[in-house]
Amino acid sequence: MNDVVLTGDRPTGPLHLGHYFGSLANRVTLQDKFPMYVLIADYQVITDRDLPGAIQRNITELLLDYLAVGIDPAKVTIFQHSAIPELNQLLLPFLSLVSVSELHRNPTVKDEIAHSSQRAVSGLMFTYPVHQAADILFCKGTLVPVGKDQLPHVEVTRLVARRFNERYGEVFPEPEAMMGERPLLQGLDGGKMSKSRGNAIALSATEDETAALIRKARTDSDRVITFDETHRPQVANLLTLAGLCLGRSPQDIADEIGDGGASALKKLATEAVNEFLRPIRRRRAEHTEEEVRQVLAEGNAAARERAIMTLEEVRAAMGF
Amino acid sequence: MNDVVLTGDRPTGPLHLGHYFGSLANRVTLQDKFPMYVLIADYQVITDRDLPGAIQRNITELLLDYLAVGIDPAKVTIFQHSAIPELNQLLLPFLSLVSVSELHRNPTVKDEIAHSSQRAVSGLMFTYPVHQAADILFCKGTLVPVGKDQLPHVEVTRLVARRFNERYGEVFPEPEAMMGERPLLQGLDGGKMSKSRGNAIALSATEDETAALIRKARTDSDRVITFDETHRPQVANLLTLAGLCLGRSPQDIADEIGDGGASALKKLATEAVNEFLRPIRRRRAEHTEEEVRQVLAEGNAAARERAIMTLEEVRAAMGF
Repeated sequence: MNDVVLTGDRPTGPLHLGHYFGSLANRVTLQDKFPMYVLIADYQVITDRDLPGAIQRNITELLLDYLAVGIDPAKVTIFQHSAIPELNQLLLPFLSLVSVSELHRNPTVKDEIAHSSQRAVSGLMFTYPVHQAADILFCKGTLVPVGKDQLPHVEVTRLVARRFNERYGEVFPEPEAMMGERPLLQGLDGGKMSKSRGNAIALSATEDETAALIRKARTDSDRVITFDETHRPQVANLLTLAGLCLGRSPQDIADEIGDGGASALKKLATEAVNEFLRPIRRRRAEHTEEEVRQVLAEGNAAARERAIMTLEEVRAAMGF
Repeated sequence: MNDVVLTGDRPTGPLHLGHYFGSLANRVTLQDKFPMYVLIADYQVITDRDLPGAIQRNITELLLDYLAVGIDPAKVTIFQHSAIPELNQLLLPFLSLVSVSELHRNPTVKDEIAHSSQRAVSGLMFTYPVHQAADILFCKGTLVPVGKDQLPHVEVTRLVARRFNERYGEVFPEPEAMMGERPLLQGLDGGKMSKSRGNAIALSATEDETAALIRKARTDSDRVITFDETHRPQVANLLTLAGLCLGRSPQDIADEIGDGGASALKKLATEAVNEFLRPIRRRRAEHTEEEVRQVLAEGNAAARERAIMTLEEVRAAMGF
């Protein structure tokens, strides 16, 4: 059987350099090797908050980010799951295959519940790994690029696929998680990189915004710049960022700066990031909102065609 | 706002006289007063068992039963929820409106879990009251004829409607439960009437099958027949059954039988039931499987049209 990649994002805000080096760059490589579906997981936005926010705006920006980094709609199918009723219907039979205690045991859901802004855990938060199984299996996805925290969800998907096949006959592949060796970029304040903490450089940031963010980054007063992740994590993080943008090793850049101190480091990092983002910004500006709406409409139509086929197969296997 | 009735059955086996006097007769009356949707809840079959069984066969028999008792497809929309992806998609936003602890507290789900044939409680069993909210709200149902055990589910639907409206603006009515004053027929063995216990007279039973079932019914050795639900529940149950079929009071029938004993009672009950079922059997035989498939296809198409409209309204209200 040929591999199919399923990957995606929740449309909660603009993508940043952490996303780029953590997953977007990988997608651009994968799109030449495999059929790929890129999911805009709009229902997942309301798993840990009451209201979806400016979801249309966020989806438009997400699509502009995708096109800017080189994700090619001629090669991949970009779609939002709320536009695919037949995908969502798969949640029903899939929920019958997973027990309530298995749902309670999911470590990532436990962790997300701990960080949720909601007073009570909703039924959607509780069951979303099963909905994610529908996201992956509707297109018979076999490869799912994930971070470590998503591994338990891929396990739920494998369980659902296995149990469905045992009960009703072979319909679904058991997808594999693809764990990349990707550098973990920290936020510019040393914490987890996140747009809402103001410590991330968005792909859509201007040159000035980029410079301002890096200027505010924490460093230390040692004028000799060295790459030491344990003792100088914030300096190391800026070196990693510059290194990723320049395609050079962080050590090499540290050596070049020598005793230039934090200001030389920030100057170099700012130039590296702006140089790196220049073609991305240019491509971003080349696309209109009209165009991305068209890309999404076409992706939704293609994904829906796939979902209709899979749901038919599922209903037939179940004898419905 | 005009009322809309939503009612239905799980397609687990043939309908019997308990169903007729408990709900079908009421539907035949209601169909002349209100727009009505009759749901064949096929996904609900796998809430408390692993496999759906002969679901196609069961659906065909159910439709034949409906037509036989006088449910008129020209007046009501008969549909199966597995054929309506847009209805099922409503489960997603609705799950975000209900907490896991609220789901755990549902007394009817607790009871069904206690009687389930499954080793573990599935996610589908746990969330099915929310799916039922989708069944009711997709057509903006306002009146839901229910037995007492279904009251907590109607409460979940009211909660979902209320919270959706509060969060996203007025879209759904808060449906009311319609509790009928319907006589509770017991099974012929004195237990709960259920096809699987062999103690129920199916609407599709032949005259001979009916006679054999009533012959086996438990009674007592007191030759004087009296209507005493407390001390002679099984005799009273046969009197109630005969009374319902004849449109007479059970006391009246007891007086007529006098000291004729159990055999006279059984003879009278058998004739009453067979007389009552005769036109139902005749109408059942007038319909072909081809015809009921057509009825279902048309009902599914009409229900789907309704679901597409409601889902569009929901997505717009949520800003998707």
